[in-house]
Amino acid sequence: MSILIKNSTILTKNNSRQRLHGDLYIEDHQIVELSKKPLTIEADYKIDGTEKLVLPGLLNTHTHIPMTLFRGYADDMLLKDWLTQRIWPAEAKLDKKFIQCGTELGLLEMIASGTTSYLDMYFFEDIIAKVSEKVGIRGFLGFALIGFDTPEYKAAELIPQCEQFVKRWKGNSLISPVVAPHSAYSCNPETLQKSLEVAMKYDVPLHTHCSETRDEVYDIEKRYGVRPVEHLKKIGLLRKGTILAHCGWITKNEILEMKNAGVVVSHCPVSNMKIASGGYAPIPELLDAYVPVGLGTDGAASNNTLDMFETMKFCALIHKNHRWDPTVLPAQTVVDLATKGGATCLGIQHTLGSLDEGKTADLIIIDLKKPHLTPLHDPISHLVYAVRGTDVCTTIINGKPVMLNLDFLTIDYEKTIEQAQRYAQELIS
Amino acid sequence: MSILIKNSTILTKNNSRQRLHGDLYIEDHQIVELSKKPLTIEADYKIDGTEKLVLPGLLNTHTHIPMTLFRGYADDMLLKDWLTQRIWPAEAKLDKKFIQCGTELGLLEMIASGTTSYLDMYFFEDIIAKVSEKVGIRGFLGFALIGFDTPEYKAAELIPQCEQFVKRWKGNSLISPVVAPHSAYSCNPETLQKSLEVAMKYDVPLHTHCSETRDEVYDIEKRYGVRPVEHLKKIGLLRKGTILAHCGWITKNEILEMKNAGVVVSHCPVSNMKIASGGYAPIPELLDAYVPVGLGTDGAASNNTLDMFETMKFCALIHKNHRWDPTVLPAQTVVDLATKGGATCLGIQHTLGSLDEGKTADLIIIDLKKPHLTPLHDPISHLVYAVRGTDVCTTIINGKPVMLNLDFLTIDYEKTIEQAQRYAQELIS
Repeated sequence: MSILIKNSTILTKNNSRQRLHGDLYIEDHQIVELSKKPLTIEADYKIDGTEKLVLPGLLNTHTHIPMTLFRGYADDMLLKDWLTQRIWPAEAKLDKKFIQCGTELGLLEMIASGTTSYLDMYFFEDIIAKVSEKVGIRGFLGFALIGFDTPEYKAAELIPQCEQFVKRWKGNSLISPVVAPHSAYSCNPETLQKSLEVAMKYDVPLHTHCSETRDEVYDIEKRYGVRPVEHLKKIGLLRKGTILAHCGWITKNEILEMKNAGVVVSHCPVSNMKIASGGYAPIPELLDAYVPVGLGTDGAASNNTLDMFETMKFCALIHKNHRWDPTVLPAQTVVDLATKGGATCLGIQHTLGSLDEGKTADLIIIDLKKPHLTPLHDPISHLVYAVRGTDVCTTIINGKPVMLNLDFLTIDYEKTIEQAQRYAQELIS
Repeated sequence: MSILIKNSTILTKNNSRQRLHGDLYIEDHQIVELSKKPLTIEADYKIDGTEKLVLPGLLNTHTHIPMTLFRGYADDMLLKDWLTQRIWPAEAKLDKKFIQCGTELGLLEMIASGTTSYLDMYFFEDIIAKVSEKVGIRGFLGFALIGFDTPEYKAAELIPQCEQFVKRWKGNSLISPVVAPHSAYSCNPETLQKSLEVAMKYDVPLHTHCSETRDEVYDIEKRYGVRPVEHLKKIGLLRKGTILAHCGWITKNEILEMKNAGVVVSHCPVSNMKIASGGYAPIPELLDAYVPVGLGTDGAASNNTLDMFETMKFCALIHKNHRWDPTVLPAQTVVDLATKGGATCLGIQHTLGSLDEGKTADLIIIDLKKPHLTPLHDPISHLVYAVRGTDVCTTIINGKPVMLNLDFLTIDYEKTIEQAQRYAQELIS
């Protein structure tokens, strides 16, 4: 398959941060040519890029995709009430039908809003993988392990089932299996240890929640005598290939440990602020220490969108406000977090997260001709401070258009929305 | 003119917080009938409200509309550099042409994103008034007074010109003149005093910035020996009819003074966070003290949008995060701030800010059939946490449609965008 994008502004985001005005040609899975001069190649899809902006697809490094069905079901509640009164009772009813439907809805929203890769953690991850492969999105899919029975498996089955999941999906061109022990507070050291063994045996990433809330830090300190990062280090999880979500309550010393170990961080400012778990992950310090950071939306139950553009704006503003310094996390840095940063977290920075000849063709196109995007002084500023997910008009993943001029090519829009509305009602009734 | 909206979910927002499913009929400027049963009246416009949500138009209680031309022109800068290096040099070039063009662009964005009333403060306010009247938006338009020459008038001419402006527009059905001394730090006590006299003489609102930054508080304390609220009180400005923007750095005692005086507050969380002036205005304490609070976007130069839905989400999340309490500012409270609260700030709560028979017909319609608005568990949750300005499909002001199913009826979309892009380049070149 080939795609030719004509006469557009292209954020190449290579080392010289070049913005190229011209054409971009994709063949099979790759960006084959970037050219200031008009290209006169034939292509299966020819896209007019006039008054549009081409940029790398965004990478959402933390979500729980089927929870999109819980969007707006439980807000403004204490975390404990949110979990025990709303989320857990609803999750207890989950089965394959709900997972498939929630995943389709989440993917529809992500594709519509310019996300081309995502890192997930949930139950029934096999179904999520099948739906993601079918829809054509790049999924880093975390098989969730926890210290008790899940809606899918008995606790004792989790490690062997996880290993089967990893074996099944390892080597797939779009789906990468991930081992995802939920957290140090919900998994005992043995589960964490065994999760690590699976991740090491198959050389796949490991994803876990870490230091999301202050209570979690106190809990781990009480149980194990050390803070969460040190606890993970003792078990061996603090290593290259480990992606820690949140890290809202880490110390300077923990940052140093993380840097030395080569772990990476997924920052989820919207969810952290909404749950009031403390949205002040020390992102400037992590970046100063060269710890790779990506952005995540978290699940729609605690956000309530999967819109990475919104997450970018919240990320830029919360840290400026917290430091009383508007120069903190400038727009370019935040765009980097959502693209290159996310790719680095997922270990795919050599092929994804920026646009250049030879790179894999995951990219999105923004329609700039909108009142709220006028005038255009600086496209980087707009991406963080003015663009919203609904300004994306085309999403291309692995060289294939999945949304083309607002039409979805791999997912049934009407059916997905209608079914999600119906199933969501069932789930909470 | 008459409008009939059929088969919709209507947020009536009366005291019982009723949500009515049915029809709404508008004649001339008023909501004439709300009915659960289908209405069979003839109307000039008949709107299908299926899968849509009807709610009161949003009230943006603080902006500088022509600054929309500066969107994205200066970000991530210290306030002083932002003003001296970017904004003031560009503003020095302002003339009627730029003001008209910037206002048209800002109104286009506000109408598109569901704002039906706005409180402005800028120079050349007469032009802003003419454009607003022509476009058909409800404008509370503040003639800016400051201690030095403006791009429009010499300093000495400001008070008499302001009086003329007030006389010219007083009594207009859409435009309400407002006296707007910029702030206590940029106006001497005499200018504040004379501004107050004009406001009192003509019984119109007075709008000023107050305690936006910590430096401002220090500055006023140094110059006058008291904090800003006390300073305004001494001059007489702390009274019913005064609308204070920001109030990020006020004390409990100042809240008490404000309550006793009957002043109201416009809270602008996005701008406060972006400029890092401290987005922590004590909104929960102001509401506890029954001080009316509305929401504002501030100018697009420091936001960078005029999207009140975005402002609602930032408002809900910043205060939850700051208090470590997700129950602070729940969704219903935030929707109230953007509707009833804004109307109360502008003194029009008896006719606007809620939907009921006999109320003035300023209302908007949201298209709910979107991936990011599915499923629909609770429309109030969606308004704050998931809806964005671009989900508004119809905007009706004073009983007239200004945007109908995404078509603009009173403003030339293409011309406005093209002209704004061209003039903005001129302004910064």
